[in-house]
Amino acid sequence: MPSDQRQFRLDVDELPTRWYNIIPDLPEPLPPPKDPEDGPSRMEQLPNMMIGECLKQEFSTDSWIDIPEGLRQLYLQAGRPRPLFRALSLEKALGTPARLYYKSEFYSPTGSHKVNTALAQAYYAKEQGFERLTTETGAGQWGNALAYATALTGLECTVYWVRAVYKWKAARLGFIKMLGGEVYASPSDRTEAGRKLYEQNPDHPGSLGIAISEGLEDSKNDPKAAYCLGSVLNHVLLHQTVIGLETQKQFEKAGVYPDLVISCLGGGSNFGGFALPFMGDVLTKGKKIQFIAAQSQAAPNLQGEYRYNFADHAEITPMLKMCTLGHKAVLEPIKGDGLRYHGCSPIISLLRHHGYIDTVAYPQDEKHVFESARLFVNAEGFLPAPESAYSVCCAIDEAKKCKETGEGKVIAFNVSGHGFMDMEGYREVLGIE
Amino acid sequence: MPSDQRQFRLDVDELPTRWYNIIPDLPEPLPPPKDPEDGPSRMEQLPNMMIGECLKQEFSTDSWIDIPEGLRQLYLQAGRPRPLFRALSLEKALGTPARLYYKSEFYSPTGSHKVNTALAQAYYAKEQGFERLTTETGAGQWGNALAYATALTGLECTVYWVRAVYKWKAARLGFIKMLGGEVYASPSDRTEAGRKLYEQNPDHPGSLGIAISEGLEDSKNDPKAAYCLGSVLNHVLLHQTVIGLETQKQFEKAGVYPDLVISCLGGGSNFGGFALPFMGDVLTKGKKIQFIAAQSQAAPNLQGEYRYNFADHAEITPMLKMCTLGHKAVLEPIKGDGLRYHGCSPIISLLRHHGYIDTVAYPQDEKHVFESARLFVNAEGFLPAPESAYSVCCAIDEAKKCKETGEGKVIAFNVSGHGFMDMEGYREVLGIE
Repeated sequence: MPSDQRQFRLDVDELPTRWYNIIPDLPEPLPPPKDPEDGPSRMEQLPNMMIGECLKQEFSTDSWIDIPEGLRQLYLQAGRPRPLFRALSLEKALGTPARLYYKSEFYSPTGSHKVNTALAQAYYAKEQGFERLTTETGAGQWGNALAYATALTGLECTVYWVRAVYKWKAARLGFIKMLGGEVYASPSDRTEAGRKLYEQNPDHPGSLGIAISEGLEDSKNDPKAAYCLGSVLNHVLLHQTVIGLETQKQFEKAGVYPDLVISCLGGGSNFGGFALPFMGDVLTKGKKIQFIAAQSQAAPNLQGEYRYNFADHAEITPMLKMCTLGHKAVLEPIKGDGLRYHGCSPIISLLRHHGYIDTVAYPQDEKHVFESARLFVNAEGFLPAPESAYSVCCAIDEAKKCKETGEGKVIAFNVSGHGFMDMEGYREVLGIE
Repeated sequence: MPSDQRQFRLDVDELPTRWYNIIPDLPEPLPPPKDPEDGPSRMEQLPNMMIGECLKQEFSTDSWIDIPEGLRQLYLQAGRPRPLFRALSLEKALGTPARLYYKSEFYSPTGSHKVNTALAQAYYAKEQGFERLTTETGAGQWGNALAYATALTGLECTVYWVRAVYKWKAARLGFIKMLGGEVYASPSDRTEAGRKLYEQNPDHPGSLGIAISEGLEDSKNDPKAAYCLGSVLNHVLLHQTVIGLETQKQFEKAGVYPDLVISCLGGGSNFGGFALPFMGDVLTKGKKIQFIAAQSQAAPNLQGEYRYNFADHAEITPMLKMCTLGHKAVLEPIKGDGLRYHGCSPIISLLRHHGYIDTVAYPQDEKHVFESARLFVNAEGFLPAPESAYSVCCAIDEAKKCKETGEGKVIAFNVSGHGFMDMEGYREVLGIE
C-alpha cells in the first residue's frame, strides 16, 4: 500500500554527508553583521569568543559544506536519520483531503532538534582545543542539547537559563545536571550583565536576550571557553539543514512533494533547518511552495521591523539585520518559551522581507495551540514540545482550510521536539488536574 | 566502516509479520493456570473479563502467530522498527574488549516497550466490540501505554495506579489524562478489593498485586469492559517478541551474534520480548547464549519458589505456576517500580527453573544502578527509564568483567524505556539538586 504508507525512513548510509548553505542562493546578498556606531568593536571580539570553524561557516558562500565524518558518527549515535511520518490518523480525525507529513525531531536524545547544532559546535570546539562551552537557554532544550554534546565530546558546559522557565522545568534541570552541565538561573549575580537586574529583582523572570549577554560575558573572560548560540546565526541554521535534507529524500521515497512547509519559529533554527532545503528548490529550481512560520503573539518577531538590531539585551553582540521587536522589548512568559525571542535569524528575516515566508501568531494564552497538540497526541500518539505544538497547530489549521476548499494539499511540518519534560505547561493551560 | 557501525536499522517492510510463540519449544509442557482448591472458579470467569483473541493466544501451541495488518500499521505509526545501537562510546569509556549493543525501546511514543502489547490488546478488544479497557499500573509506563493505545483505537481506559508511584509521577499522570485516560490511585475506594485497604490507610502505598485486583474487579462488573494485563501472561510476552525478532534481523545485518542477552525483569514482558526469540535459537538450533535477568533486591522474584501462586493480592486471578515471593509479600518501594512484582511470567519461570536464565538482584537503594545509568547517559546520550537502568547496569557490570578476563563478548541489552518522566527518581537517588 505505497499510497497509504505511514512511515518513511532512511538507512544509516543515507544520512546526508553535506549541509546546505542557502546564502549564495538568496535573492540578495545577506547583510553582514556590523558594529554599532558607538562603543567598542563587537566584531573584533568574535574570534575570541566563537569557535573558529563556526565563524568561518557563518560567512561562507559555498552552497554545500561537508559534515566531518566524526560528526556524522555523532549524528548516527544520536539516532539520525529520523523517520518522516504520514499523519494518516490525524487526517482521518480531521476529515481533511490534505495529506499531512511530519518529521520526528522529537526522537532526539535530549528531546529536540537542538542536538544537531550542539553536536557540531561541540565537535569543532573540541578540535580547536576549547575546554568549556557557555550558553544561554530559554525553553531549556538548547541548554540540554549542549550539555549532552559536551558530555559526548568530553567538554565542560555552563548554561544561563531564563529564570521564568528554569523555575518550572525541574526535570529538564535534573537531566542537564546528570549530563554534568553547570546551570544558573538568569539574570544571575555571576556576570556584570546579569548582576544589576538580579539585584533589582532576585526573582527577575529574565529573557533570552539577557541570558545571551551572560553567556557571552562568561566566555569572554575565559580563554579556554567558547560561546555557543543555539539559534539565529547562519552556521546554526546550516547545521540544522540536516533535518530538511533528510526530509527531502524521504519525500522522494514517498513520491510526493510538499505544497506547504510549516514549522514554529523563535530564533529560526528549527524552521530554517526544516525549510531552507525546500526554499533552495524554490530559489534555484522554480518549485512553488508556501512557507508558514508559526509564532506566538508574545513574540511575533517576523511581524517586527526589518533593521539592524542587537541580538542580546546588554548589547554585547554585533548588530544583525533582522526582523525584530527591539532588543529591549519586554516579552510576556509563555509555556512555549523557545519561541520567545525578540529577533529572527538574518537569513529567515531576509526571506520574509522578500515575501517568501508567511507567518501566523497565536494568542499567548496558548489554549488553541495546546488543544491542537492534544488532538495530535490522541490521533498520532507522539507528544510534541510546547514549541512544536505551534507547528502542529498551524498544520491542523491549514488542513481544516483544505477541508473547506476541498484541496488535497501536501502539508509538511516539523515536530521539533517532545514534551515529556514540559507536561506541567500542558496541564496548566489545558486544566488537567 | 562496517565493524564500527553505530546503528543498525530495518526498513518499514522489514517489520516482523509474525510473533514468535516459544511455548511449543519449551523443555517441558508449560503448566497451565488453574483454580485454587477452595472458592469459586476463576478459570470460568476468564472469558468474561479477557479479550477473546488474547485468551486464545494464551494457550496457543503454534510457533508463529500472524500480526494482523491493521496492527502492523499501528506498530509503524508507533515508530517501529526501532534501531539497534552499538555502544561504541560506552565501550571506550569502560575500556572493555566486549562489544555492547542496545535496543532502543525508549523510542516508544509513551516511553516504553509496553506499547507493543497495549496496541495489540486494544486492537483485538476493538475488533471484539469492547468499549472500555481496565488495568493496573506500577511505574506508570503500562497505564500510559494502554491509554495511548485506547486513544488511537477509539476506546475508553481506566487505570489503577499503585499509590506509592502515582504520587511522584505528576508528568506521567498528566500525559495519561491528556490521552483521555481515567486514573485512580490504588488502593482506591472504587472497588471491594481496594476499599478495605484504603479505609485502613488512605495513604496506603499499594502494590501491583492490589492494583490488578482492582482492575479485574472493575471490568468484571461491566460487560462492555475488558481487563488487560501488561506483563506476566503468555500473550503479553508473545506480543513483545517483536522486539527480539527485530533485534535478530539487526544482528544479522551487523554480522555478529550475541554471547550474552540481558534485560531487566519485573513481571517478564520486556525481558521475554527481547530474549525469547534468542532463547528459541538456543532451544531449537543449539546456539549457546547466556541470559541474565536484572532485578531489584526489593523483588527478586526469580530467586523465589517455583510453585502455583495467585497473580494478584486479592486472589481474583487463577493460580499460575511461577517463581514467586508469595502474593502477600510486602515489597519496599523503589524508583524502578516496574520491577516490583511478587511473581514472574510462567514462561520465564519455567526456563529459569530449567537453568536457562541467570539472575542478579541489585540493592534497593538503587545507587549502583542509577550511577550506571548516569555513566550510560554521559557516554551514549540516551536517558533510560529507572527500570531500564537495571538492564544498563548489568550490561556494564558484565562488560567490566570482560575487561578483567580479556573476553571480547558480544553483549546485547534492551533499554526498555526512557526516563524523561522519571527524573525526580534519579535526582533523589543521585543527589542532584
